[in-house]
Amino acid sequence: MTGDLGLDRAFHAKSIAIVGVSRAEGHSAPGYTGLMFLRLLQEAKFQGRLYPINPKADVIRGLKAYPSLTALSEVPDYVIVTVPAALVPQVLQDCISAGAVDVHICTAGFGETGEEEGKRLESVIRDIALRGGLRVVGPNALGYHVPSDRMQMYSQVVLAQGPVAFLSQSGGHCQTYVRQGPSQGIGFSKAISYGNALLMDSTDFLEYLATDPETQIVGMYIEDVKNGRRFKQLVTQVNPEKPIIIWKGGLTPSGARAAATHTGSLAGDRQVWEAFFKQTGVIKVDSIDEMADVTMTLLRLKPSPGGRVAVWGGGGGNSVAAGDVCAQEGLQVPPLSNKTITALREFMTIVNQSVVNPLDGGSVFEDLLTLKRALDIVAADPAIDIILLHLGVGYAKWFSAEHVAGFKKCVSGFARDNPTGKPAVVAVRDEGKAGEAEEFVRELREAAITTYSSLERACRALSRFAQYHRFRAEMGASAQGAGRPEPTYRE
Amino acid sequence: MTGDLGLDRAFHAKSIAIVGVSRAEGHSAPGYTGLMFLRLLQEAKFQGRLYPINPKADVIRGLKAYPSLTALSEVPDYVIVTVPAALVPQVLQDCISAGAVDVHICTAGFGETGEEEGKRLESVIRDIALRGGLRVVGPNALGYHVPSDRMQMYSQVVLAQGPVAFLSQSGGHCQTYVRQGPSQGIGFSKAISYGNALLMDSTDFLEYLATDPETQIVGMYIEDVKNGRRFKQLVTQVNPEKPIIIWKGGLTPSGARAAATHTGSLAGDRQVWEAFFKQTGVIKVDSIDEMADVTMTLLRLKPSPGGRVAVWGGGGGNSVAAGDVCAQEGLQVPPLSNKTITALREFMTIVNQSVVNPLDGGSVFEDLLTLKRALDIVAADPAIDIILLHLGVGYAKWFSAEHVAGFKKCVSGFARDNPTGKPAVVAVRDEGKAGEAEEFVRELREAAITTYSSLERACRALSRFAQYHRFRAEMGASAQGAGRPEPTYRE
Repeated sequence: MTGDLGLDRAFHAKSIAIVGVSRAEGHSAPGYTGLMFLRLLQEAKFQGRLYPINPKADVIRGLKAYPSLTALSEVPDYVIVTVPAALVPQVLQDCISAGAVDVHICTAGFGETGEEEGKRLESVIRDIALRGGLRVVGPNALGYHVPSDRMQMYSQVVLAQGPVAFLSQSGGHCQTYVRQGPSQGIGFSKAISYGNALLMDSTDFLEYLATDPETQIVGMYIEDVKNGRRFKQLVTQVNPEKPIIIWKGGLTPSGARAAATHTGSLAGDRQVWEAFFKQTGVIKVDSIDEMADVTMTLLRLKPSPGGRVAVWGGGGGNSVAAGDVCAQEGLQVPPLSNKTITALREFMTIVNQSVVNPLDGGSVFEDLLTLKRALDIVAADPAIDIILLHLGVGYAKWFSAEHVAGFKKCVSGFARDNPTGKPAVVAVRDEGKAGEAEEFVRELREAAITTYSSLERACRALSRFAQYHRFRAEMGASAQGAGRPEPTYRE
Repeated sequence: MTGDLGLDRAFHAKSIAIVGVSRAEGHSAPGYTGLMFLRLLQEAKFQGRLYPINPKADVIRGLKAYPSLTALSEVPDYVIVTVPAALVPQVLQDCISAGAVDVHICTAGFGETGEEEGKRLESVIRDIALRGGLRVVGPNALGYHVPSDRMQMYSQVVLAQGPVAFLSQSGGHCQTYVRQGPSQGIGFSKAISYGNALLMDSTDFLEYLATDPETQIVGMYIEDVKNGRRFKQLVTQVNPEKPIIIWKGGLTPSGARAAATHTGSLAGDRQVWEAFFKQTGVIKVDSIDEMADVTMTLLRLKPSPGGRVAVWGGGGGNSVAAGDVCAQEGLQVPPLSNKTITALREFMTIVNQSVVNPLDGGSVFEDLLTLKRALDIVAADPAIDIILLHLGVGYAKWFSAEHVAGFKKCVSGFARDNPTGKPAVVAVRDEGKAGEAEEFVRELREAAITTYSSLERACRALSRFAQYHRFRAEMGASAQGAGRPEPTYRE
């Protein structure tokens, strides 16, 4: 497919029909059932009309049920299909008869099974959809999740709206990201789970997102791409203006074997993909955690190609580890200038501390005026682009609540207002006690401090962030806009 | 130093003198003070005699205080020195006068500062210690932590005794490990923080541990080694019988810069260290987490050089990720045999599931008889060495408490009794909610299931475990004993 897909209608549906809604949940474990989608949409207070389709029911969850799509009094903007695979061809015929165009096939059991029957059925539904002009997302997918329209497809989700789109061949990864994104300040324009990609593939959705004013950053989980050349062209064009972050699943033989049975994908050649990332400048990640960390960084930090950090922690062993981790993750930790060292030595002892970089200076965290002074001195060093504070979870316990509140105010204020414009971020160091680190991370984020849940995660995100902006600068793209939520891309 | 160091006296001290105990804590932040050591030993109910030394006090924390070491009525087995650096030479003279031999210099501010005065002082105390025949641990260190003797040097610690020794140039890393080890079933024979290694270095302590019947596994955090040749010889000799796990700090330029100011170490050449690990078969790790995971694996799993895993999870995207993660971390995920696949297909649908490896089969976890049957079938496959169950934290919530209890019983029973002797372990998949994963990990460990807090951590530990046993098998070492807590090594 190319050109305007007309997907706005589905993304902002005013009416949704769900085909295959049973009257009661049948399983002890959660499955993706029509009843579940109905419940989720009701719980999210979806503002449009909902039509459960079940030939044997009159009312389901308080709503009138219909025997088939053709019995509806309006053409639904979006149809969710959850009937068994063998019945899907008939439902697609009904869609065509009823005039519906946007169809989400949730049902699995097609080509991805590797069995003849599944492959045959997939071919049948492809033919029906093409002939009928249906815009199918799926099969074996969870479709469109659109917070702005309260189209909720996942449970235990905060409906956070924002400038991030996620395209995923895995419904599970989609669920993970929309569940955990909001805790990192990530809101979604659309999260799209497209499974086997019967008709519409990542390229098609990316084409839509490229001109979608609600989307400024695009994350993707892909197992394969049907038209590699067109995909690469489009990505090359979009990435400088709207950063693209890709987790490519199935880059190893065992991962590829799983991908074949997951979405029927041929997950492809590692070398081809490595060349792809190098040539396009697309940000490569290996998990949802990494995707969320890079996205948070793009959303919060001013664009900058510099990856030279000053790491400031406490404890000698921790400082050595910090130096090693930063370097291993691709960040530079340059020595500080003599001027900086001399200025720090005026108020920092070097017994049990250190003013080389990594800095080992617990005493600085004990006094807020000293902290502010130290931040100013280090930020003024021309060798440094980013200040990375490495804090043990114990910090919040050693000091009084007033001190900790003052610390948060000092760091968030410095990050927002310091005249050099250099970012100051925090990485939390776990100290082995259940839940403590997550709690401390949450508190710091609530205080508007860009916070990572480990040094490794901070370094990975910051180095990818810097690498993206270096690539972009080298490509000569406009230095404005990218990574910030202003709509700038137009074809 | 070589030969019998006579360290038993210090490790099992009946009397400890602490030099430099103030009457009240002076700082808001925790520092390593004499008063802190006194408090920790009292809180741990240390059974020997404690002598606070302070010329200006009569009683501290309910104990009679003495003006100097020479005023004691007995020779203390262990002396902890916490006075400022400039006063340490005099205290060492007092140790000699009083006849004390084992001295822990906690004080920092020596060679590691890089300053002339610190270097000079370090040279002075070295001369005094050598002339007086003192066995000094430190300076800039936290000394000996011995759970069996309730010699506790760290706060918030469970005093878990066990077959693991830890040697560390960083007191902070020592603290981290002794704090978090017990949650993974790791108990310690000795944890030794030796800082600047004035006289006794890792090699000396390792020589002691080699013949220590209480120690079966040795972990080390090192920044440099003073006699590389002797160290390598000793490690080569010990490692086949008592596995040695080393975290080498300062392998990158920025890590090495921190190491120089931390313990005055020349952290050395990455290539030299890579050759060292390859030639000795010592297990290389990059953090305390990795060290704890490998140690837990050595303690719990039967020695086996096989690293071929069957990964069993739920969700297509998760399976692809599992296949990729295992392969990236050095584990093989081989295809299952046709016999295995046919047997699984008898009761597993392949709609939304998969019987390739990685296995994607949530339905198996829903019924305990099916689970047991599936475990038996997969364990019988000759291509598989280890069964790795990959469970989302949600598992404990989807099912009833009875079902989850049955699951734990099934997996722990299978791991203990299955006729193939192949291990079954669990890796927990975080689903983004604070504290949940840690709680689920804890519950599974309490049910005697070998549990890792992520798939990455499981794979890293299992691949190092298999690699160690392969190296050992290739070296022709006895196949019995290593990695299990029976005392087998004698010089």
